[in-house]
Amino acid sequence: MKRGESSGTVPATHVRAGGQVTARRTLPEETPVAMVYDGTTHAVMMASPADIEDFAIGFSLTEGIVAHPEQIAACEIVAHARGIEAQMWLTGPRAEALSARRRSLAGPVGCGLCGIDSLEQAIRPLPVLHGRGPAPSIGEVASATDRLCEWQPLHDRTHGVHAAGFLMPDRGMILAREDVGRHNALDKLVGAMARQGLDPGQGAFVLTSRVSVEMVQKCAMAGCAILIAVSAPTLHALRLAEGAGVTVAGFARGGGFDLFSHPERLEAEFRHVA
Amino acid sequence: MKRGESSGTVPATHVRAGGQVTARRTLPEETPVAMVYDGTTHAVMMASPADIEDFAIGFSLTEGIVAHPEQIAACEIVAHARGIEAQMWLTGPRAEALSARRRSLAGPVGCGLCGIDSLEQAIRPLPVLHGRGPAPSIGEVASATDRLCEWQPLHDRTHGVHAAGFLMPDRGMILAREDVGRHNALDKLVGAMARQGLDPGQGAFVLTSRVSVEMVQKCAMAGCAILIAVSAPTLHALRLAEGAGVTVAGFARGGGFDLFSHPERLEAEFRHVA
Repeated sequence: MKRGESSGTVPATHVRAGGQVTARRTLPEETPVAMVYDGTTHAVMMASPADIEDFAIGFSLTEGIVAHPEQIAACEIVAHARGIEAQMWLTGPRAEALSARRRSLAGPVGCGLCGIDSLEQAIRPLPVLHGRGPAPSIGEVASATDRLCEWQPLHDRTHGVHAAGFLMPDRGMILAREDVGRHNALDKLVGAMARQGLDPGQGAFVLTSRVSVEMVQKCAMAGCAILIAVSAPTLHALRLAEGAGVTVAGFARGGGFDLFSHPERLEAEFRHVA
Repeated sequence: MKRGESSGTVPATHVRAGGQVTARRTLPEETPVAMVYDGTTHAVMMASPADIEDFAIGFSLTEGIVAHPEQIAACEIVAHARGIEAQMWLTGPRAEALSARRRSLAGPVGCGLCGIDSLEQAIRPLPVLHGRGPAPSIGEVASATDRLCEWQPLHDRTHGVHAAGFLMPDRGMILAREDVGRHNALDKLVGAMARQGLDPGQGAFVLTSRVSVEMVQKCAMAGCAILIAVSAPTLHALRLAEGAGVTVAGFARGGGFDLFSHPERLEAEFRHVA
């Protein structure tokens, strides 16, 4: 496999009751990716080594490092033997803000805070989305994860990666990104949309995964008010979604879905269907 | 829902093509859990709020904070409004070692390293497992994830959590733990085994998830040489497994599996089956 490719083929012994055969399997790659701001690493994630600039921009937005992509003055992707660096330089005010954040509070992980303080920092304040942008129809929500399947070439090859897509009412799934990590897939989608000037407030994020706290946090930070997922939300994620004004539809598969938080965005159509 | 329970029931609108009905869904909880050593937070994870002492002991072992559970002089679980603290006190030499590790290198995340240095630190050196402990039979490997299903009461209720189990040759699945996070489920299993004096070298870990780099790292650190997973390994995880002497069987479902790294532990039986 060439470095930087998102999948590769390896030998495997395929064992079944009747015996075993030597076969080849195409599997997903994963690579450490360092998010580096002004020369200092902020985080390292294991990720699929594709769409790294989308990942860097999206991570910066959903983690609140920047509020707009223009606050990233430059972004350079550098491949090393051990992984990939996303080297970003922030505009003056954001660089100062990040530096101050580092000085006052370097985050909950391994940074000398006591337990109670680090628990307080674990769930950060989120923006509240009041908007009533265009909402997908019930049929569009019910078929959203089927539509996303058409955007998953890496998953088709490897059966081992997640995807996040953007569903626009009356336009269908217009963009998607894949990654071994569900958080990364969403960050890559958010970054790709920002680079193309697409507004997350104009549709819904669609996920192949469950809805954990972090997925609601990233959704709210990106300004998308509707989250559709193939699997379950957690209770904590729903409490955050209630507070942040995010509509969560889970178990979206088999032609239906379960609507949990902020159903008002999709309820207009209910009368016509019942 | 009472605080500390791993699942709870919420109202949901169940939407299908024929209309919608109000229903109730049982969903998994997730809570920030802080791993605190000698008064300082090392990491905060979102986790299912059960088996926290198992989690603390297992995390300490698989992350290399301690080499043996006895190096944790005391472990107290404290529930707060915002999450759970696992307060651990290390024996003198380990406390000094952790303190030195913090001073020289506080980890790859957000701690002022440059990008290249942080990529170097992302993949830590692993022990090499040479042992040829008892190996499960081909039939035991092929049915391992089916057996694990019998140990997943939280998943049965919520359809949204992972499990990790320990399979002993000729004894079947003897222990398992569940969690919203696949890493946490494995850490809880490792901790539960350590507390019961069970040796991971005497069998195989069985996972409901894919096999990422972190799962191989935790497996090797725990001293378990055989990893069986329902889903795909990544290429990077297989390279680490080759180096660390870990046998990886993936796609273990439907009565079969694919054998990737170190097949020698299971090959003895191949002649009899082919």
